[in-house]
Amino acid sequence: MLMTGAQYIESLRKMKTRVYMFGEEVKDWVDHPIIRPSINCVAITYDLAHDPEYADLMTAKSNLTGETVNRFSHLHQSTEDLKKKVKMQRLCGQKTASCFQRCVGMDAFNAVFSTTYETDKKYGTNYHENFKNFLKMVQEKDYVVDGAMTDPKGDRGLAPSAQRDPDLFMHIVERREDGIVVRGAKAHQTGTINSHWHIVMPTQAMKEADKDYAVSFACPSDAEGMYMIYGRQSCDTRKLEEGADVDLGNKQFGGQEALVVFDNVFIPNEYIFLAGEYDFAGMMVERFAGYHRQSYGGCKVGVGDVLIGAAALAAEYNGAQKASHIKDKLIEMIHLNETLYCCGIACSSEGHPTLAGNYEIDLLLANVCKQNVTRFPYDITRLAEDIAGGLMVTMPSEKDFKSDLKVGRNGETIGDICNKYFAAAPSCTTEERMRILRFIENICLGSSAVGYRTESLHGAGSPQAQRIMISRQGNLEGKKELAKAIVGIK
Amino acid sequence: MLMTGAQYIESLRKMKTRVYMFGEEVKDWVDHPIIRPSINCVAITYDLAHDPEYADLMTAKSNLTGETVNRFSHLHQSTEDLKKKVKMQRLCGQKTASCFQRCVGMDAFNAVFSTTYETDKKYGTNYHENFKNFLKMVQEKDYVVDGAMTDPKGDRGLAPSAQRDPDLFMHIVERREDGIVVRGAKAHQTGTINSHWHIVMPTQAMKEADKDYAVSFACPSDAEGMYMIYGRQSCDTRKLEEGADVDLGNKQFGGQEALVVFDNVFIPNEYIFLAGEYDFAGMMVERFAGYHRQSYGGCKVGVGDVLIGAAALAAEYNGAQKASHIKDKLIEMIHLNETLYCCGIACSSEGHPTLAGNYEIDLLLANVCKQNVTRFPYDITRLAEDIAGGLMVTMPSEKDFKSDLKVGRNGETIGDICNKYFAAAPSCTTEERMRILRFIENICLGSSAVGYRTESLHGAGSPQAQRIMISRQGNLEGKKELAKAIVGIK
Amino acid sequence: MLMTGAQYIESLRKMKTRVYMFGEEVKDWVDHPIIRPSINCVAITYDLAHDPEYADLMTAKSNLTGETVNRFSHLHQSTEDLKKKVKMQRLCGQKTASCFQRCVGMDAFNAVFSTTYETDKKYGTNYHENFKNFLKMVQEKDYVVDGAMTDPKGDRGLAPSAQRDPDLFMHIVERREDGIVVRGAKAHQTGTINSHWHIVMPTQAMKEADKDYAVSFACPSDAEGMYMIYGRQSCDTRKLEEGADVDLGNKQFGGQEALVVFDNVFIPNEYIFLAGEYDFAGMMVERFAGYHRQSYGGCKVGVGDVLIGAAALAAEYNGAQKASHIKDKLIEMIHLNETLYCCGIACSSEGHPTLAGNYEIDLLLANVCKQNVTRFPYDITRLAEDIAGGLMVTMPSEKDFKSDLKVGRNGETIGDICNKYFAAAPSCTTEERMRILRFIENICLGSSAVGYRTESLHGAGSPQAQRIMISRQGNLEGKKELAKAIVGIK
Amino acid sequence: MLMTGAQYIESLRKMKTRVYMFGEEVKDWVDHPIIRPSINCVAITYDLAHDPEYADLMTAKSNLTGETVNRFSHLHQSTEDLKKKVKMQRLCGQKTASCFQRCVGMDAFNAVFSTTYETDKKYGTNYHENFKNFLKMVQEKDYVVDGAMTDPKGDRGLAPSAQRDPDLFMHIVERREDGIVVRGAKAHQTGTINSHWHIVMPTQAMKEADKDYAVSFACPSDAEGMYMIYGRQSCDTRKLEEGADVDLGNKQFGGQEALVVFDNVFIPNEYIFLAGEYDFAGMMVERFAGYHRQSYGGCKVGVGDVLIGAAALAAEYNGAQKASHIKDKLIEMIHLNETLYCCGIACSSEGHPTLAGNYEIDLLLANVCKQNVTRFPYDITRLAEDIAGGLMVTMPSEKDFKSDLKVGRNGETIGDICNKYFAAAPSCTTEERMRILRFIENICLGSSAVGYRTESLHGAGSPQAQRIMISRQGNLEGKKELAKAIVGIK
Repeated sequence: MLMTGAQYIESLRKMKTRVYMFGEEVKDWVDHPIIRPSINCVAITYDLAHDPEYADLMTAKSNLTGETVNRFSHLHQSTEDLKKKVKMQRLCGQKTASCFQRCVGMDAFNAVFSTTYETDKKYGTNYHENFKNFLKMVQEKDYVVDGAMTDPKGDRGLAPSAQRDPDLFMHIVERREDGIVVRGAKAHQTGTINSHWHIVMPTQAMKEADKDYAVSFACPSDAEGMYMIYGRQSCDTRKLEEGADVDLGNKQFGGQEALVVFDNVFIPNEYIFLAGEYDFAGMMVERFAGYHRQSYGGCKVGVGDVLIGAAALAAEYNGAQKASHIKDKLIEMIHLNETLYCCGIACSSEGHPTLAGNYEIDLLLANVCKQNVTRFPYDITRLAEDIAGGLMVTMPSEKDFKSDLKVGRNGETIGDICNKYFAAAPSCTTEERMRILRFIENICLGSSAVGYRTESLHGAGSPQAQRIMISRQGNLEGKKELAKAIVGIK
Repeated sequence: MLMTGAQYIESLRKMKTRVYMFGEEVKDWVDHPIIRPSINCVAITYDLAHDPEYADLMTAKSNLTGETVNRFSHLHQSTEDLKKKVKMQRLCGQKTASCFQRCVGMDAFNAVFSTTYETDKKYGTNYHENFKNFLKMVQEKDYVVDGAMTDPKGDRGLAPSAQRDPDLFMHIVERREDGIVVRGAKAHQTGTINSHWHIVMPTQAMKEADKDYAVSFACPSDAEGMYMIYGRQSCDTRKLEEGADVDLGNKQFGGQEALVVFDNVFIPNEYIFLAGEYDFAGMMVERFAGYHRQSYGGCKVGVGDVLIGAAALAAEYNGAQKASHIKDKLIEMIHLNETLYCCGIACSSEGHPTLAGNYEIDLLLANVCKQNVTRFPYDITRLAEDIAGGLMVTMPSEKDFKSDLKVGRNGETIGDICNKYFAAAPSCTTEERMRILRFIENICLGSSAVGYRTESLHGAGSPQAQRIMISRQGNLEGKKELAKAIVGIK
Repeated sequence: MLMTGAQYIESLRKMKTRVYMFGEEVKDWVDHPIIRPSINCVAITYDLAHDPEYADLMTAKSNLTGETVNRFSHLHQSTEDLKKKVKMQRLCGQKTASCFQRCVGMDAFNAVFSTTYETDKKYGTNYHENFKNFLKMVQEKDYVVDGAMTDPKGDRGLAPSAQRDPDLFMHIVERREDGIVVRGAKAHQTGTINSHWHIVMPTQAMKEADKDYAVSFACPSDAEGMYMIYGRQSCDTRKLEEGADVDLGNKQFGGQEALVVFDNVFIPNEYIFLAGEYDFAGMMVERFAGYHRQSYGGCKVGVGDVLIGAAALAAEYNGAQKASHIKDKLIEMIHLNETLYCCGIACSSEGHPTLAGNYEIDLLLANVCKQNVTRFPYDITRLAEDIAGGLMVTMPSEKDFKSDLKVGRNGETIGDICNKYFAAAPSCTTEERMRILRFIENICLGSSAVGYRTESLHGAGSPQAQRIMISRQGNLEGKKELAKAIVGIK
Repeated sequence: MLMTGAQYIESLRKMKTRVYMFGEEVKDWVDHPIIRPSINCVAITYDLAHDPEYADLMTAKSNLTGETVNRFSHLHQSTEDLKKKVKMQRLCGQKTASCFQRCVGMDAFNAVFSTTYETDKKYGTNYHENFKNFLKMVQEKDYVVDGAMTDPKGDRGLAPSAQRDPDLFMHIVERREDGIVVRGAKAHQTGTINSHWHIVMPTQAMKEADKDYAVSFACPSDAEGMYMIYGRQSCDTRKLEEGADVDLGNKQFGGQEALVVFDNVFIPNEYIFLAGEYDFAGMMVERFAGYHRQSYGGCKVGVGDVLIGAAALAAEYNGAQKASHIKDKLIEMIHLNETLYCCGIACSSEGHPTLAGNYEIDLLLANVCKQNVTRFPYDITRLAEDIAGGLMVTMPSEKDFKSDLKVGRNGETIGDICNKYFAAAPSCTTEERMRILRFIENICLGSSAVGYRTESLHGAGSPQAQRIMISRQGNLEGKKELAKAIVGIK
C-alpha cells in the first residue's frame, strides 16, 4: 500500500521519536517550522508515486512480493532500475531543490541485501533472511528508513576499539539470547527524525579487535533509548520569523541533519544483519558508499536544474538576459550539471548483478561521479551568484518590503521605498525579483547550502575517500601494460 | 587628532543618523547586536593607528596639512604609499576577518581629488578647492566617510535620464544660489551607517542628456532627508540570540550593507564636487573603481589569512593535519591567497602620479587583481569546507552544548552528550573545535560570506566590468604588432 | 567477409588514390614512412575483429543482411549497440594511442541512413534505398569509408553561395541525367587517404539560395578528379629519419589529416543521398556531429589510458612513484579520463531510435561529452608532462644514445655518456626510460598531439559549437518553471 | 664595453666549444640551422642594449666598476633594479617569443655574490673576492654566462655520495695546490653552448658526506674536458629543411637545451666559489631558484604577449574576431598573462638587501609566481589553439603552398589549390594566415613549446618544489594565531 504524503505526515505524529533542539525537547516536532520543510520533502516522495506521470520512475514491482512499491524501497533488478533510480532522484531534486532524505534507506537496502547474502554463505548466519523479512515489512508499510553509517569517530588515527571513549563508534555492549544491546551514535544523519525505522551499518572496514563494532541492524526510530539532537543550519531561525515567506527562499522544502544517539538500545535477533563478522564490515561500507555516490549524480543534478532556472530568471529580472557573458554562464552551468548526470547514468548503465541477485553500480564510475559532485556544485553556485548580483545579500528584509512605517518626505513607507528602488525589469514585480534572489541566497549561503554545497562535498564520503577508491579501481597496472605494448617494452 | 576606537563609537552616538531594519526604526543602533560588530570593525582602524607596531602602515603625513593622519584619510603620495595602503588593508582583514568599511572613503578621496583637479582645469569650476577643504576637515576630525557610488539602476538597458522613475539614479532636482537639492539612493552601501559623512559619486559614464545625474558631493550621514534601510545577511539574527557566542563564529566583528536614501537632500555649494560636467563622470567612476579593485588585493587577502589559519586548526583538531592531501590543500590556499596579494602589490608598485599630484594605481593590473578576487576566495572557501568536514553544518547549536537537560539513561545532559560525541583531538577542547568550525561556517555560509564571497565577486564591479577594462587596457593592437614582427608580416 | 589487417593494406595498394606531400606526388604512399603508421591504425580495426576476445565489441550482426560485419560498418540497433561502439573505440585507442580514423565513416552511415529516410518521406526521393545499397556493399566488402563534412568555408561571415570563390563549399556544378558533377574540397580529413570510399555531407544548415551546396553522396577515393594534399604534423619528418625507433615515441601507429579535393567529380545517381533538399542539410550535420561527439567519449579515453599508463611508468623509472603528489596526479588523470568515458556511455545509454529505425544518442549529453573532451585531455597532458619531468624535451636524440663516436678522456662514446648520465632507476634500462619519455612527448607535443589535443578541441566541432547545442538542448524554459514553482511565482 | 649582437656571434666563433648532435660532432655550430636561432635570441640581448629606447631596462651602472653594463651582468642594487630585471625579460620575450638564455647567468651572479659573502664570513675563505673579480671580467667583456645547476641525479631516493655512479652529481675528484679537478654533468642546460663561461653550482642542499659535491666555480665553455650533447626538440629538423620559412613558425629565434659534460676539468683557485663548505650549498640553491622563479614572471609573460597577439590575428584572419566568445578568450589570455606579471613585479617590489648588499626577491612571492607559471601558459596555449582552429595542425606544408606541380583539371598547381582553399579573410593573404598559424603551432606543439610549456613547468624547479617552499614560507603558525585571536581560543 503506497501512502500519500499526508498519510506519511500523519504516521510520523504517531511515533514517539525524541527530538532535541537549542537545548530543549521539541514536542510537536512534526509541526516545528524548522523541521517541517524537511518533512515536506519526504512527503513529496509519497505524493509523486501517486502521480501517473511519474509512476514509472517512482514505483517498481517488488522482487520479494510482486507488489508495486515505492522505488525508494526497491531492490534494483537491472541496470534499467539503476538508471531509473537516478532519474527519480533528479525529479525529486527538481521538485524540492532540497535533500529529500529517503535515498540513504534505499542505498542501505541494496547494500545490506547483498552483503548479508555473502555473510551467510561464509558463516551460515541467518542475516539475509532477517533482512528480507524486514524489507518486506518496509515495502508493505511504505516506510521511510534512515541508512545510518557515520560514527563520530573521535581520533581519526585510532581504531574503534582503541578510542579513549568506547562509544565513539557504535558497538555491541551486551549479547543476549534474544538479541543484542548497542551503544553509540551516528552523526550527520540526514532525515533521521523523519524516518520510521533506522538501518545501522558500520562506518569502516574493521579488524578482529573491532569485532563488537562490526554491527548492523534495524530498529524503529522511537526505540527505547534512542534520541536525536538537531543540527543547526545557516539561516535556520529565519523559519521561526513571523509570517516568513520571501526571506526563506524556499518556504516549503528543506533539509535536516542530526546526531542520533543509541543509549543502550535493545535489538531483537530478527533485526540483526551483522554482529561480529568483522570481515564483512568493509564490504557493507563500500557497497553502501558506492550506491550513495551514484545517488548524487541524480539528486544534486535536480537541485542544479532549479538553481539554473533561478539564475536565468534573475538575469531576466535584472534585464541582463541578452548579455553574451550571461548566456555563456548559463550554458556553463548546464554543461557542468549535465556532466554530473552523465556520471550518474554511466555508473548505473554499467552496473552488474551481485551474488544475491540485485544490481550494483560500476564502482569506479560511481566514485568518479561523486568526485565531480564535490566540485561542480561549487562552480555552479559561483556562477549563480555572479548572475544574481550583489543585491542577493544586501537586500532589506521582507518585513521592510511590507512595512507601512512612513519615512519619506511625501509620506512614503519603508515598503514604498524598497519597492521603488529595487524595482525590477518590466517583466516582473519587485517581489518576484526578491523571491528569486532569496532562493539563490538560500542555495548558495542559506539553509539549502548545507545540502547543495557541504553535503555535495562530504556526503557519501569526503573527496579524498573517492580518490582512494579511484586509485584502487583505476587499474593502473593494466594501463602500464598498454603503454609498454605500444612503446615496445617487454 | 587621531581618535581611538572608543572615541569613534562615542562620536557615532552623537549623530542623528536614521536607520531602519526589519520594517522598523532602530533607535540605539550603535548598540544593536546586528549592527555593532560592523562598528567594531571600523573602530579597529582607529585603535591600530595608535599601536606603535603598526604606525607606519596605519598613519601617514598629510600632504595637505603636514599632520599625521589616519592612512584611510590620506592622499597617496608615492607608489610606496599605494603599497602601504594594501598592507594596511591586509592587516585590518587579519584582525577582523571582515570588511572594515573604511576603504571606500579613502578610494573616493583619491579619485575625487584628481578628477576635480582636471574638471576645474577644463571648466574653471572650484571643485578641487572645495574637495581639499572638505578633506582637511575629514583628516583633522579623523572622520569615517562612505564613498557612495552604486545607484539602484532600474532597467540596465536604459540611460539614467530614460528610466521610468527618474530617481533610480541619483540626480539634481533643484539648483539654488547656495547649493543643490539631490534625490535618489545608493544601494549596496558598505558601512554607510557607520560613517560620519558620505561622498556621493556618479555610478557610470554619462552623456549630455544625463547632465543632472553627473553629480558628486559630500554631506553628513545624518543630513536632513537622508536615511538607511539595513540589508539582511545570512544568519544575521543569530546575533540576536541570547548569550550567543560560539554559534556566531566571529562574535566581535562583521560587515554591513544598506540602502541609503537621499530624499531631497540639500547640498551647500562648498560640498559640491561635480554638478553637470557629465564628461567627467566616467573618469571619477573609473578612478574610484581602479583604487577599489586594488583594495581587494589587500583586505580579502587578510581575511584569507585568517581562514587559512582556521582551516589549519580545524585539520589539527580533527586529527588530520598530517595527511598529505590536507597539507596540499593548505598550500593551495596560501598559494591562491598570495597570488591575490601579488596583484594588489603589483598594481600599486606600478602606480603613477595624476595631474593633481596624488598617485593612482596601474589600471590594467588593478583590474586583473579584482578579476582574480572574483575567483580565488571561492576556491579558498571550498578548500576550507573540505578540510573542515561536514560537522561544520550538522553540529548542534551552542545551546545544546550548554544545555543541562537530562536525556541519557545515566542522567547525561544534552551538553554531556554533545561534548562526548563531538570530542576533539587531545590538543583541544570540544568547544575550541566548535569555535573554529563555526568561524569557518561564518565565512563560507554565514554573515561573513557576504563580505568574503559575494563582495569579492561584485564589490568594486562585477567580473564582467573588469573584463571590459582588461580588454580596453590590454593593448591588443600592440601585441598583434609583436606577433607580426616575429612571423614577418608587414 | 571480414578482411584482416594485411588484406586491408593490400587492398589499398590496388587503388589509384592520388596523394601529394611536400609539393610532390607520393607514389608508393602505402609504404611511405609518414603515412604508414596511420594505415597501421586502420589495419588494427580489422585485426581486432578476428580476435575472439574482442568479437563482441568489434563485430555486429548486420540488420541489412544478417551477416556478421565489422562494427565500424554497423547501423546501431539498440542503446547497447551505442555503448558497444564507445567501448570498441576505447579499445582501439588503447591499442594504438592514436586516431584510428574509421569512426567518421560509421558516424556518417548512421546519420545518412536516418536522414535519407526522412528526406525521402518528404520529397519522395530514393536516397534511402541508394544508401542502403551502398552500405550493403561496404559491409560486404568490409570497406573503410571517410565521412567528409568540413568545407574550407572561406569567410565565416558569408553563406556558401555568397563566397567570392564558389568552390569554398562543395557544390553541384552540373546536373546530368545519370548523375551530378561536384566541385570543392573537404579540409581536415582524418584518414581520407586510407579509405576505400568517401561519403560527402554538407557542412552546415542551409537556405534556399544554397541549394546546390546541399549535397551528399558516396564515391571511391580514387574517383576521377579526386586527390589529397597531406597535412603536416608536428615532428612528422622524424619518421623519415634512418633507423628511427625510440625518437618516434610511437613507432607503429599515428594519425593522418589531409585536404581532399573534388575537381569536377562525377557522381552516378545511385550514390547520391542529397542533392538540393537544403532543409535536410542541417539534420544531416547535426546527427553526424552528435554521433561524432559521442565517439570522442570512447577513442580519446583509450588514448588517455595509455598516456596515464606511460606517466605511471615514467614516475617509476624516475624513482618517484611513491611521492604522494605523484600518486595524486595519477588519480586526477584517471578521474578526468573516466569522466569523459561516463559522458560517452551516458549519451549512448540514453539513446533512442530514429524514424528509420537505427539508434541515435542523446544529443544534449553527446554535446556535453565533447565539450569535456575539449578540456580534459589538456589537463591530462599537463599532468603527464609534470610527472615526466623536463628530460622529455631536453634529452639527446636516439642517434646520440647509439653513437660510438669517442668523446671522453677514457674513450667513452657519446652513447656511453648518454647512457651513463641518463641512467634510470634500477627497475628499467635507460632505453626503456627514453622510450616512455618519447612516447609522452609524442602525445603532448609530437605528431600524436594533433590527435590527442587539437582534434579533441576542434574535431566534431569546436567548443563553441557544442555550447550552442547545449544552449538549445538544455531546456532553460523548463528549468525556469521549476524555479517558479518552488519560489511561488505564477 | 657593450658588444653588439654581431660582435657576440663573432666572439662565439673564436671559441673551441665542443658540440655533439645526432651522434656526431657539429663543427660550425654557430651557423648550424638548428642552433643558430637560439644564438640569435642571445644576440638580441646585446642589440637591445644599444637601443636608446630600451637603455634604461637593458643596461645598468655596475656597483663594482661604476661602468655601464648589460643588465644581464648586473648585481641588483634596489627593488627598482629587481623590477627592471623583470621588465627587461618581458621585453626580450616579446622580441623573440623564445627563451633568450641569458637569465640563468644573471640569477647565478646574484645568488653566488651573496652566498660567497656569507660563506667567507663563516669560513674565512676567499670566494667572494674570487667572484667579484670574475664578475668584473664578465661585465667588462660583456660575456654570456651559463648558470649551471641541475645534475642528472640518478636515483632520486639517494644522496649524491650514495649513488651507484659517483658522477651522477658533479663533484671534486682531485684537490691540487693550484685548484681542483671536477667531474660530472649538468642536464637541461639552456644556452650552455651559447655561453662564453659557465658558473657551476650545486643542485641541492647537502650534508657532510656530500662534501665533495658542494662545489661552485666558473670556467670557460671550451675548457679542456668540457663538451655538450644537444637535446632534441619537437620539430627541430624542420629547421634543416631547404628554404624553410613559414613552416618554422619562428624562423629567426628559438631555444636550446643540452647536456654539458665535465670530464675531469681543472678549475684554478681563483675561479672557485665553493669547495666543500656543504652547509652553504642549500643557500646557493635556494637563492638561485628564488631569482629564477622571479624571472619567469617576466620572460614567459613576454612570450605570452606575442602568443596573444598571434591569436588575435588568427581570429581576424579567420574572420571570427567579432564573436563574443573569441573576444572573451582573448581577455582571459591577457588576464592570465598579466597575473603572472603581477607576481613577477610583486616579488621584486617586496625585495630586500642581502648581507652582501645586492637585493633579493621576496621568496614566498617568487615561489607563488613560478607556481602560477606552471599553470597559466598551459591555459593560454589551449585558448590559442582554440582560437587558431584545427587548420594549425592539418595544413599542408610550405612546400605544397609553393609547389608548381600541376594537379588540377585546368592546370592548377598544388600551390594554386592550397592558396585557393585556404584563402583567408580579405584583410590578409593566405601566406600571412599560414604564418600566424604556424607560429601558434610552434609555441603550442613545436620547438618553442619546449620553452613556453615544459620549461614553464619544470624550469627553476618542478611544481612540487615551489609547493614545498610555499609551505615553508607561508607562516601557517602565524595564521593559526590570527584565527585563534578572532574566535577566542587561547
